[in-house]
Amino acid sequence: MRAIVPVIAFWTVFQMGGSAPLFAFGAEEGTVVRESINRNRVEILEELMEFLTLPNVSGNLDDILENARHLQKLMERRGIRTQIVDQERAPLVIGHIEFENAQRTLLLYAHYDGQAVDESRWVDSKPFAPILRDGTLEEGRVLELPAGGEILDDWRVFARSASDDKSPIVAMLAALDALEETGQTPTSNLIFVFEGEEEAGSAHLPELLTEYRDLLRADAIIVADGPVFITNAPTVYFGARGIVTLELTVYGAARNLHSGHYGNWVPNPAQRLANLLASMKDDSGRVLVEGFYDDLKPLTPAEEEALESVPGVEARLMEEFAIGSTEGDRTLMRAINLPSLNVRGLRSGWTGEQARTIVPDRATASIDLRVVESIDPARQVERVIEHIRKQGFYVVSSEPATETLRAQPKVALVTSAWGYAAHRTAMGDPLCVTLLEALRSQFGEVVALPTLGGSVPLVVFKEKLGNDLIIGLPIVNPDNNQHSSNENLRLGHFYRGIESFAVLYTMPGLSD
Amino acid sequence: MRAIVPVIAFWTVFQMGGSAPLFAFGAEEGTVVRESINRNRVEILEELMEFLTLPNVSGNLDDILENARHLQKLMERRGIRTQIVDQERAPLVIGHIEFENAQRTLLLYAHYDGQAVDESRWVDSKPFAPILRDGTLEEGRVLELPAGGEILDDWRVFARSASDDKSPIVAMLAALDALEETGQTPTSNLIFVFEGEEEAGSAHLPELLTEYRDLLRADAIIVADGPVFITNAPTVYFGARGIVTLELTVYGAARNLHSGHYGNWVPNPAQRLANLLASMKDDSGRVLVEGFYDDLKPLTPAEEEALESVPGVEARLMEEFAIGSTEGDRTLMRAINLPSLNVRGLRSGWTGEQARTIVPDRATASIDLRVVESIDPARQVERVIEHIRKQGFYVVSSEPATETLRAQPKVALVTSAWGYAAHRTAMGDPLCVTLLEALRSQFGEVVALPTLGGSVPLVVFKEKLGNDLIIGLPIVNPDNNQHSSNENLRLGHFYRGIESFAVLYTMPGLSD
Repeated sequence: MRAIVPVIAFWTVFQMGGSAPLFAFGAEEGTVVRESINRNRVEILEELMEFLTLPNVSGNLDDILENARHLQKLMERRGIRTQIVDQERAPLVIGHIEFENAQRTLLLYAHYDGQAVDESRWVDSKPFAPILRDGTLEEGRVLELPAGGEILDDWRVFARSASDDKSPIVAMLAALDALEETGQTPTSNLIFVFEGEEEAGSAHLPELLTEYRDLLRADAIIVADGPVFITNAPTVYFGARGIVTLELTVYGAARNLHSGHYGNWVPNPAQRLANLLASMKDDSGRVLVEGFYDDLKPLTPAEEEALESVPGVEARLMEEFAIGSTEGDRTLMRAINLPSLNVRGLRSGWTGEQARTIVPDRATASIDLRVVESIDPARQVERVIEHIRKQGFYVVSSEPATETLRAQPKVALVTSAWGYAAHRTAMGDPLCVTLLEALRSQFGEVVALPTLGGSVPLVVFKEKLGNDLIIGLPIVNPDNNQHSSNENLRLGHFYRGIESFAVLYTMPGLSD
Repeated sequence: MRAIVPVIAFWTVFQMGGSAPLFAFGAEEGTVVRESINRNRVEILEELMEFLTLPNVSGNLDDILENARHLQKLMERRGIRTQIVDQERAPLVIGHIEFENAQRTLLLYAHYDGQAVDESRWVDSKPFAPILRDGTLEEGRVLELPAGGEILDDWRVFARSASDDKSPIVAMLAALDALEETGQTPTSNLIFVFEGEEEAGSAHLPELLTEYRDLLRADAIIVADGPVFITNAPTVYFGARGIVTLELTVYGAARNLHSGHYGNWVPNPAQRLANLLASMKDDSGRVLVEGFYDDLKPLTPAEEEALESVPGVEARLMEEFAIGSTEGDRTLMRAINLPSLNVRGLRSGWTGEQARTIVPDRATASIDLRVVESIDPARQVERVIEHIRKQGFYVVSSEPATETLRAQPKVALVTSAWGYAAHRTAMGDPLCVTLLEALRSQFGEVVALPTLGGSVPLVVFKEKLGNDLIIGLPIVNPDNNQHSSNENLRLGHFYRGIESFAVLYTMPGLSD
């Protein structure tokens, strides 16, 4: 294996001659890499667990910086040249490593910060004192790490960021070790971008990507965040929906009024809100806002084919979620390749024990709009506002004055926040095809998703780095309790994820 | 004035010869009674304020009993024979007084318990340390009670139960004094029923009315609770809407789900609830539930005429409430003579700062249904449930089992609580006509409402006492902050209320 700039002794020791294949990882190489990973399961896990002991709640700058420095050491041990930029605000760890005869450069993104923690809700463990169980939270027993012993696929590590998103980082580095140990050289130069502010909203990432654009030039961007598809098969995604949120308040009288004395004379804002929301979406799940689907770009044949080959999960999910119907008759995959309008919250007056016989003074709905490639989120918001106007509402963007409320038959306050667009990478691009083929040759079944249902700001990389080949390569288990207490990583997924990165690093060059 | 059983010295002293007119209260008698009340403004107010110093939060039995005993003394001082029944649970004060040549018996109902208090929210006063202001809370200055001095109509007393409902009780008693002082004898025997459990829901009242039914035989029942009409004119009401409440929960998945990964595939219960509520009532305020208006009895000509003569308050209320439209084009009075369906609360997921990008697991609406005379509240609930079924929901009455949620396309939990029917007294009854004429002769303008918009369980008196001549005679100001902090009584209304009871007691006999 041949790293062009082997700065650290450890890395140098393992350097090998120029005989390494340019497109490794046929069945044989895949097997030896897997064996190498399996031989080193304990050591790899120890490296992860040590990393997990460092508190990393997003926003705690001192902690974040300590994580960045630890990460820097892990990277430099592999011969990666590193720098930590923006240490005063949002420390971003950037690493570079080049290889002889590399065919391209790949930029790998992950984040090392984590969500806030509520220690009291962690069972038998603490967020930054990782423990091992021989199964899920519900069924697994707590284990000691068996020094030199066997580690089974179903075992799990419980800690903050065990899955989101420290394990992908450790997996990216361990993949280099496995290639090293088995005498294989990556076919791509690698740039690592590890963010410390993702869970706080990535406020500085766009600026930093712009500032370091020249350092971050790559042929493709690999995002390693989020879980694999719910069937647990290895997963690649080529896009993600964008999102914009709306808050919508409809007004009644200036104060709550007695529903007997004034009810069915004074306007009821809860009823008006219900009628307005009902006008936006029918029972089959079709959004009735004019133009909502207008800019929808048809899926390409490659995307269509990918969609059709995603395993059917509907029956299983309906059982798990205890639902007897879905919104419309579409498959989950068809649904998430459409723009959506989702009422995520309703508030008006009181219900249950607190209920009072009033006509509420106002009613609020919180809505998220997901958009897919080619639909502009700002335009989508405008369409919804136009729809609200057509229902007879006078739309304001801040708390309306009393005079406005008196003058207008119906008033709605609409505000919108944190939007970004969708992105969809062309699945037919040779690099995408090559990666999928390489992964399938290693794993057999691989799920290729044209679009993630969730929103990941892939578009930021596209906009700031001018690169639209952005591919998601998640590795962790979907039942990982991400963002919550008892976050966990299934180790079978983790070790397989290391293989995935090894496949990525050694996939055939474009010229081959 | 001639009380048949004058047990107390005070009362006896004022007895007069048989020359008192049987139907007093022409213009002249009205004037002398008013003058008597005005002469005694300070003493009457002192009696009220002393009563208001007794804590009377409903449910505090010791306090309630102390109020009952105090009340007993006030009554016996006027020669009323009293008893306190059900002292262990819900002390009910019953009083009787008969007069020579009385033409009928009237039962007067009020309550002496009060709503709970939050002392911290009372401005410059405490709930049970009444103070006087020379105006409203916002504009009035705090005053000392001027011993022997002048008391103006706009002055107000601030204390719990100042308006709801101790002042009507004191007014009923002071009216006897004024008649006594001016040498007039009531034309009706009087029964007083003062309840100590009204604000806690009157759980024992039906049972007590049944038990003491023989003691409570009367020609008509006068209920003195609630405020006068919003124009502040003297008010009589002849009915009240009944009420029944509904809570309606619509289900999505068994837990909140990520709105990106599962949104617009998994059913959104907030959207389904909105669509369901929209199917129940259109933008013009018409309830679309089949049969909702079927049992509506047309207003009688007398009721129609009364409705037409209620002063128009719509423009003023629209200004005050800051609304630019109403539900439908009806007047307030037309509206409250219809059954209603009012969404009093909505809850699903989160809004505002707490909003999360989820598909909520459930959505709940709290609804009250008001009914008018001749519409059965239980039947009305059934109609709404039938409507929900017609929208494709499987309706359950307790938390549905997972198996039910899996088996049914749409599931709704519907529960209903505390219902009672409406009551409407025939306004054409000679007693009603006589009372209205007598009040109009005293005051000029009197508002006669066929139905109160709010719900008062008049029907309990009808059902338990077999008496359907039930008339509301409220006296207090509508802006009294009833049930809230800084509850208050405008004294002009109070003194006028005393006159109203004097008119009631001396209205012409049926035979005249």
